[in-house]
Amino acid sequence: MLQDAAMGATTMSFEETRDLLDREFPQMHDGGRAYHLEAVGPLSARMRLDHHDRFLRPGGTISGPAMMALADYALYAAILANIGPVALAVTTSLSFNFLRKPGAHGLVAECRLLKLGRRLAVGEVRITATGADDLVCHATGTYAIPPR
Amino acid sequence: MLQDAAMGATTMSFEETRDLLDREFPQMHDGGRAYHLEAVGPLSARMRLDHHDRFLRPGGTISGPAMMALADYALYAAILANIGPVALAVTTSLSFNFLRKPGAHGLVAECRLLKLGRRLAVGEVRITATGADDLVCHATGTYAIPPR
Amino acid sequence: MLQDAAMGATTMSFEETRDLLDREFPQMHDGGRAYHLEAVGPLSARMRLDHHDRFLRPGGTISGPAMMALADYALYAAILANIGPVALAVTTSLSFNFLRKPGAHGLVAECRLLKLGRRLAVGEVRITATGADDLVCHATGTYAIPPR
Amino acid sequence: MLQDAAMGATTMSFEETRDLLDREFPQMHDGGRAYHLEAVGPLSARMRLDHHDRFLRPGGTISGPAMMALADYALYAAILANIGPVALAVTTSLSFNFLRKPGAHGLVAECRLLKLGRRLAVGEVRITATGADDLVCHATGTYAIPPR
Repeated sequence: MLQDAAMGATTMSFEETRDLLDREFPQMHDGGRAYHLEAVGPLSARMRLDHHDRFLRPGGTISGPAMMALADYALYAAILANIGPVALAVTTSLSFNFLRKPGAHGLVAECRLLKLGRRLAVGEVRITATGADDLVCHATGTYAIPPR
Repeated sequence: MLQDAAMGATTMSFEETRDLLDREFPQMHDGGRAYHLEAVGPLSARMRLDHHDRFLRPGGTISGPAMMALADYALYAAILANIGPVALAVTTSLSFNFLRKPGAHGLVAECRLLKLGRRLAVGEVRITATGADDLVCHATGTYAIPPR
Repeated sequence: MLQDAAMGATTMSFEETRDLLDREFPQMHDGGRAYHLEAVGPLSARMRLDHHDRFLRPGGTISGPAMMALADYALYAAILANIGPVALAVTTSLSFNFLRKPGAHGLVAECRLLKLGRRLAVGEVRITATGADDLVCHATGTYAIPPR
Repeated sequence: MLQDAAMGATTMSFEETRDLLDREFPQMHDGGRAYHLEAVGPLSARMRLDHHDRFLRPGGTISGPAMMALADYALYAAILANIGPVALAVTTSLSFNFLRKPGAHGLVAECRLLKLGRRLAVGEVRITATGADDLVCHATGTYAIPPR
């Protein structure tokens, strides 16, 4: 459903969302850029994580914590793109099911908001290894939206 | 319940558990040591995360991903210490409730295993800011234990 | 993806799965039949819950516990249909996000297995009110599969 | 920490909380009283579920859905007792880890609120079989508190 970075129909554009993420999560890029916002859309976002030494576990697969960060960023991006920069959301819960080892690949996270209420947003994220279909991880997250 | 690093009564000693963690999760120490195993005990472990620039969000609080890594490491340590190095556990799920901003402090994670079965371990983690009592984050995790 | 009760391509047929569920969960039908298996398919199942007095909260909406039972049954049905009656799965975890009040309607649960391993099955369930598209509840569950 | 039904120091008394629960969840008592609020306290509540035919699975253990209802009621009771009847909380998420079969016993749920904010309450529940110490189930739940 997400075709490219410029698909529009969101409150914030792709570029605005990406720049706001960069300002909010500067530590995301410590050691070099590896997390890349690829697209935002209505109730959705896609984010990519490069296969990079600093995330690897022995065996060459991306670590759980790097994957969890990816899911959180993707959910955050989808919410920001759709509610705008007025209010910053706060993560209240995140749940992960780790399904398969990703192998020595980068990861793609497709995020879809299941609910975008006035006070609460809930979304899910499907993470696959680059070029593969099998889910590596499924995540759900809830975010509190401060009163505007 | 955990008094010091040498409290014993586990399958692996504190030192053995710490060294195995270091070998399994070398990326834990990228940028300098900040995650410190403090104690292991029967069905339990305690881990500390220093307040360090590379984990900070604007405002000076430790980021969600750094906290999630801390919980995963603490659960892993408690399981390893209690089942020994024979079988490496695999994280199958992790759930987090983020309760309060931790402020500009380090974090302490107290982990307690709720079940340590032959095939499955389940535990919970309570994360507080150093020197404070209020919970910053509560986590639960499940780990598959490979056949031995 | 589930078209009708007889779509096949599973280890157990629709009828076999339904009958096994009835034997395993007789309490499902206490007070009259309201939970109905509608279809099983490859890695999937669909279940319906009638709008029935015994599940209602003040306001006429189906209660949380009735919805949670529906998700558990649907996951169970999808697993049984796909692994066969040899081994009975054991629920090890269930997580629910409640997204909207369902109104005075019955519910439909679409279940999809995200992983069906030798020892562990993981699936998700999307619950909508009959005739509506908006998600009422999203659930994920993990099940241990006994050694065969 | 919960000593008896009259321990006080809550916004609503034990009797007020019990009566409000009965009005809010009348379906709780369908088929006869089996869920019993035993105590409320500061940020806490205890609830009991009798071993009753209508909750049993083959083998005589209480079913997962009956256990999930117990956890939800206990969390609800702890919140109501501590915020008062002004605002009714709405369950937004529930997560369960099922740890052991309870055997042919009743169940006791000890609930502790981890956070009771202005807009969000988060709590955990530990369920044991009557007269036993081992955890049968661990649950966490989050509830939205409507603006007052």
